[in-house]
Amino acid sequence: MLHAIVMAGGSGTRFWPASRAGLPKQLLPLAGEKSLLEDTVARLDGLVPPERTMIVTSARLLDAVRRQAPGVPEAGLVGEPCKRDTAPCIGLAALLVLRHDPDAMMAVMPSDHVIRPAAEFRRAIHEAAAMVAAAPGRLITFGVRPTYPAESFGYIQQGVPLAGGPTASQAHAVARFREKPPASVAAEYVAAGNYLWNAGIFVWRAATILAALDERQPECMAHLRRIAAAWDTPDREPVFAEEFAAIKGISIDYAVLEHATDVAVIEAPFGWDDLGGWSAVARQRGADEAGNTSVGRHLGIDSSGTIVHAADDHLVVTLGLTDILVVHTPDATLVATRAHEEAVRKVVAEIEKRGWKEYL
Amino acid sequence: MLHAIVMAGGSGTRFWPASRAGLPKQLLPLAGEKSLLEDTVARLDGLVPPERTMIVTSARLLDAVRRQAPGVPEAGLVGEPCKRDTAPCIGLAALLVLRHDPDAMMAVMPSDHVIRPAAEFRRAIHEAAAMVAAAPGRLITFGVRPTYPAESFGYIQQGVPLAGGPTASQAHAVARFREKPPASVAAEYVAAGNYLWNAGIFVWRAATILAALDERQPECMAHLRRIAAAWDTPDREPVFAEEFAAIKGISIDYAVLEHATDVAVIEAPFGWDDLGGWSAVARQRGADEAGNTSVGRHLGIDSSGTIVHAADDHLVVTLGLTDILVVHTPDATLVATRAHEEAVRKVVAEIEKRGWKEYL
Repeated sequence: MLHAIVMAGGSGTRFWPASRAGLPKQLLPLAGEKSLLEDTVARLDGLVPPERTMIVTSARLLDAVRRQAPGVPEAGLVGEPCKRDTAPCIGLAALLVLRHDPDAMMAVMPSDHVIRPAAEFRRAIHEAAAMVAAAPGRLITFGVRPTYPAESFGYIQQGVPLAGGPTASQAHAVARFREKPPASVAAEYVAAGNYLWNAGIFVWRAATILAALDERQPECMAHLRRIAAAWDTPDREPVFAEEFAAIKGISIDYAVLEHATDVAVIEAPFGWDDLGGWSAVARQRGADEAGNTSVGRHLGIDSSGTIVHAADDHLVVTLGLTDILVVHTPDATLVATRAHEEAVRKVVAEIEKRGWKEYL
Repeated sequence: MLHAIVMAGGSGTRFWPASRAGLPKQLLPLAGEKSLLEDTVARLDGLVPPERTMIVTSARLLDAVRRQAPGVPEAGLVGEPCKRDTAPCIGLAALLVLRHDPDAMMAVMPSDHVIRPAAEFRRAIHEAAAMVAAAPGRLITFGVRPTYPAESFGYIQQGVPLAGGPTASQAHAVARFREKPPASVAAEYVAAGNYLWNAGIFVWRAATILAALDERQPECMAHLRRIAAAWDTPDREPVFAEEFAAIKGISIDYAVLEHATDVAVIEAPFGWDDLGGWSAVARQRGADEAGNTSVGRHLGIDSSGTIVHAADDHLVVTLGLTDILVVHTPDATLVATRAHEEAVRKVVAEIEKRGWKEYL
């Protein structure tokens, strides 16, 4: 049976001040009316029932996640005591689903990407699951046709086409993975035509990924097995805290995928955006006639190319502005040129340095 | 005896959203820690006692004015039921002070200008009063040496020097008044060297200005005399409302000064700024090393020439901005290029058009 594992532990600074330590990107309604996590859970409707959906987040976000995913049973909510990247997250999820379903298949996905239309996503996951059912040892990743030489993504080189693959979605063996290349290399990849962005969406049997982790990350798995053993006992919390903290964080790509032999990549038949910043938000939301993208109450006069994100009923007026970003929240407002979108990290670093914790 | 008449009825839109219908410019701490009105009242300390100070404002601002000028007795607070420009305001004030002091001399001044240092202002008013004492029929205005060809000010052409004038402050007869000239004419005035900006500060005997108003504005004075007659009766409020509304608004310059024969202008020996917009605020407050002027909590990164005005503890971060204005208030925020400072009026007009009364 197919289980969905939604990875919702992300924390970032690119959407500050809209995103905060206690309200990261995935919990914000950046691309639409609902939060990215809410969209991710809704996208599973008809593919995986809530009782086979697991959301892995950080412990301090559990309450917020619970409120945004009321349909997911308590047993499906996992709050990591600390951040350890994707391999420990996926390993633990595999152990937990295997307790009750030895043949469990997993669809693993981030909670903070924009994927549309949902029906195409469901169809693609469904086809990937069928492919894994036919080749049980296979690890499937999803790749996205690159539209520009991004330096911030991982790339997957397509190898030979795989027989018996989905008809609509081309499946290939993976020739190799390449993490965040410099722009010149990324440009070569895009030009070559056989590289895809790694979308961070995976389909595999829980037993397969577990065996691979056992082989490549035995120490990590020893800790995870002790956590899983204590899961249904009163010791869950202290054991989880102690053992998880002792794990060395590593991504599933580095830990397993780059070393595994039977890895396939399916070119995503759905639209995908990792929503890396405010310009991506504007791209997803579209702009009005003047080229302005607004969330909340925005009055733009002689303004174009602005992105305004305002909380509550606060009125933001832009006058004579071009390509300016305004993010208003009840206690902090950011005004930046869109060209400085990436430098929002500097702002957060400066606020940390000044000890203004109330704004983090 | 010298009485101070502080004209505090102004309403404007240039400082929106910091200024609102119920909180106009003169009630805001734009140039320092205290509001412009508070500064104006404090500036009188040592020149005129509070019991001879009268603040004329609009009725709906009375409560706010009372809070900002707690030292001024209730009898010194006048709330006009509607706006009728400066001549009716000054005429009424003259009638009211004459009730108890037939020889009253008046120093009339706006409440929303920046005047520094206060001691120089007091000295100049004192000298002007001495000049009026020596020439009881004289009307004295203060002029400011122009620093650029402003189109938004009135100009006063200096005539012959007046004998017996103050030693430190040059006094001249007024050759003529000229309201808001076009830029080319203003440039000629500045180049000519004998034109001063009209600072809107006057010293004269109450009886003199009253006689002039009686001659030039008999209808207005008839209404004002009915108001003054009812002032100490239970009918004050309805009579004030009815009679004042019936007056045709006109400035004291148009009504009297342009026609009077014995008008002198004293070149102000104090610094003066009518604080016509945010750039004037920045000029008064000065800038930090990066050229940013901040009121409230502002973190500027890679920003220069910004003006940030934030209420409460709200944090405003500017990133990568040059010459941008950010005005934050609890319910509305304006972000504009400084070049669009004058166009803030357009914003307020648009908000009025949309019927968003809560932001006016």
